Amino acid sequence: MTASPARPFRVGLLGHGTVGAAFRELLEERADAVAAEVGQRPEVAGVLTRSGGDFAEILERSDLIVELIGGTDPALGYALQALRGGRHLVTANKQLLSRHGEELFEAARASGAQLRYEAAVAGVVPAIRVIGETLAAAHIERVHGIVNGTTNFILTAMERTGASYEDALRDAQALGYAEADPTEDVTGKDAAAKMAILARLAFGALVHLDEVPYEGIETITADDIAYAKELGLSLKLIGSAERRGDGLAVQVYPAFLYAGHPLAAVNGSFNAVTIESPAITEITLSGPGAGGSQTASAVLGDVVSAMIPPAFNPAPAERLPLVTDVESAFYLHVEVADHPGVLAQVAEILGLQGVSIESVVQKGIGEDARLAMVMHPVLESRFRAAVDLIGRLDFVRSTPRVIRVIAEVFE
Amino acid sequence: MTASPARPFRVGLLGHGTVGAAFRELLEERADAVAAEVGQRPEVAGVLTRSGGDFAEILERSDLIVELIGGTDPALGYALQALRGGRHLVTANKQLLSRHGEELFEAARASGAQLRYEAAVAGVVPAIRVIGETLAAAHIERVHGIVNGTTNFILTAMERTGASYEDALRDAQALGYAEADPTEDVTGKDAAAKMAILARLAFGALVHLDEVPYEGIETITADDIAYAKELGLSLKLIGSAERRGDGLAVQVYPAFLYAGHPLAAVNGSFNAVTIESPAITEITLSGPGAGGSQTASAVLGDVVSAMIPPAFNPAPAERLPLVTDVESAFYLHVEVADHPGVLAQVAEILGLQGVSIESVVQKGIGEDARLAMVMHPVLESRFRAAVDLIGRLDFVRSTPRVIRVIAEVFE
Repeated sequence: MTASPARPFRVGLLGHGTVGAAFRELLEERADAVAAEVGQRPEVAGVLTRSGGDFAEILERSDLIVELIGGTDPALGYALQALRGGRHLVTANKQLLSRHGEELFEAARASGAQLRYEAAVAGVVPAIRVIGETLAAAHIERVHGIVNGTTNFILTAMERTGASYEDALRDAQALGYAEADPTEDVTGKDAAAKMAILARLAFGALVHLDEVPYEGIETITADDIAYAKELGLSLKLIGSAERRGDGLAVQVYPAFLYAGHPLAAVNGSFNAVTIESPAITEITLSGPGAGGSQTASAVLGDVVSAMIPPAFNPAPAERLPLVTDVESAFYLHVEVADHPGVLAQVAEILGLQGVSIESVVQKGIGEDARLAMVMHPVLESRFRAAVDLIGRLDFVRSTPRVIRVIAEVFE
Repeated sequence: MTASPARPFRVGLLGHGTVGAAFRELLEERADAVAAEVGQRPEVAGVLTRSGGDFAEILERSDLIVELIGGTDPALGYALQALRGGRHLVTANKQLLSRHGEELFEAARASGAQLRYEAAVAGVVPAIRVIGETLAAAHIERVHGIVNGTTNFILTAMERTGASYEDALRDAQALGYAEADPTEDVTGKDAAAKMAILARLAFGALVHLDEVPYEGIETITADDIAYAKELGLSLKLIGSAERRGDGLAVQVYPAFLYAGHPLAAVNGSFNAVTIESPAITEITLSGPGAGGSQTASAVLGDVVSAMIPPAFNPAPAERLPLVTDVESAFYLHVEVADHPGVLAQVAEILGLQGVSIESVVQKGIGEDARLAMVMHPVLESRFRAAVDLIGRLDFVRSTPRVIRVIAEVFE
């Protein structure tokens, strides 16, 4: 591969299902940005689908192979051929890595090609990169994670609604968060494969999927969750890999977490991984579990990394206008005389400036009252203008206090 | 630099304060592990302190310079000389990068040396790597973060204890979480420098520290926090950088977050960064803010990355014993006849197996009662033996249910 700007970086794509199609679309959308960053434009050199394409031909004209077929056969054969032929390999295939990791890494070491697999483990959560690069020199003690979005979605629903496991599973299937046959997910087997991969990387240890004991969530009852709530606990399906003496313990099981645990607040279909090491204490990474566009994005990140020469320096920056008057939600706190019509006048001023109130708490304190309000998002200048007017009202007893509010964006 | 195994990778260290000393110690401790991973052993080629060492000599015999002096002068001159001389530079200096980033990146691009600065932004939280590498190809919409541990420590204390700002600051100073002169932290200026660096990387935009408006936490009152709690909000000092039309808004301000926001659960001196992009939804990274050993660990991660040739393949894995009987805390749920002495018998069996009870909830249901208990950590085999015995007691009405409990590890 030369770095000539005229020559594109050729990506051979194996598999064109949900993730494959999303990856192809994202690659085309971001190709110019990648070229600006890296100096070479990535483009799809060929696509192998169930019905068409020839692997040998695609391999021949590719610098890098993206394997999104899944399963072992024929994916393993293709992956080994690609690596032995000196092509970088990016894969989202956890079966392949947790069963045949050594063979694949050996092939990559022998040819000097890169083997990258961020998308195989925790969706868009960059656990592989952080463990393999940021913490390459660290002595890692434990990796703990929520690495299956389907089961986390089900457990979160059970916790919030009191639903039974069966009902929560049915809802997850209806919403597309669980497959028609959810066995791999709900038994913990999917998480076990991911923990085998993480353990290998974090501890440099051979761990085969078949060596990871796993329990799932099928026997969890609404009662378990309800009682645990009283003890301040929330239930998650946890994958754990940790040093124990000279050995390793790698397991998957449902576990209760205390409210303060960094994984306890990870809800819905999100994934998260906590890495513990004496020097760093811990790092927690969280984000959406596998979805088509998220997995595609993790794959593209790996492709771009494989393209980047060792120097890690950003391209020259450009001058973008800096905006300071920004839309935001706001909290307003003001003390007022406790007269009828006071709240109405405050609300009217806000309304005239286009500021809409989301919630109000009013509390009497002697002859005065305190108003604490949260507004829907509005341009700061408009809100400040309203507050300025409110501050001049004769029944206002204190300088209004303003603090921004950041709304919950995603679940 | 040749990759000959006989030749060490020489690191010149500028500055030998808390972080410098911690880095030197960590480097020596991990040098063999790094050599096994990367093929070259890192070692300190020279140290420049206030009282000793000669920069030109150190530069001459180094492959990479670690700059931990802080401030602009003489750090900027040293940094530029190092990069222009083709030496990689790893720095934790946010002033340098937020004021002179362009000059430094230009020097790095010109010589092909690497400029790495993970430790300058959010302690051990790998925001720079994830934005610069995982998300190199992503269209980032917003970067939101808690990038100052001192202020987060103070705000968390105010929220938990109802303390005033002044009292919480005094406590933070006594505990070493705030400096004697806390101005840079509490005014938001420290966070502003970090957001300038993050914005540059996330958006490829020129952002100078002086262009980032910032507000601090000095005027926050215990009342603000108490009232907001009633609205389900918690207060954080937020650094925000986001696209607005064709421009950028980069700011630092105190803001309320709803309970479900990924940054709302980040407490104490921890830092966290949330990155939003349409393809990935969001990624949140969290971990301890700057402490000596944490910052040193981030610096070492950068040093190792600068040493790694482009191929990203782990060293051959070794076979470690897999342990399956592991110490853990457990939850036990069992239905029993509601007789006197029942709890005592259950507790006795647990005690005989060395299982110690942390908490119990007992609830009557008709003639029966439910016991929900959480145990202190114990070897699983011992706990299972106790549960087996409990299951055989004649007053036990249900199969005992067992679920692991993961305790809160860190704050």
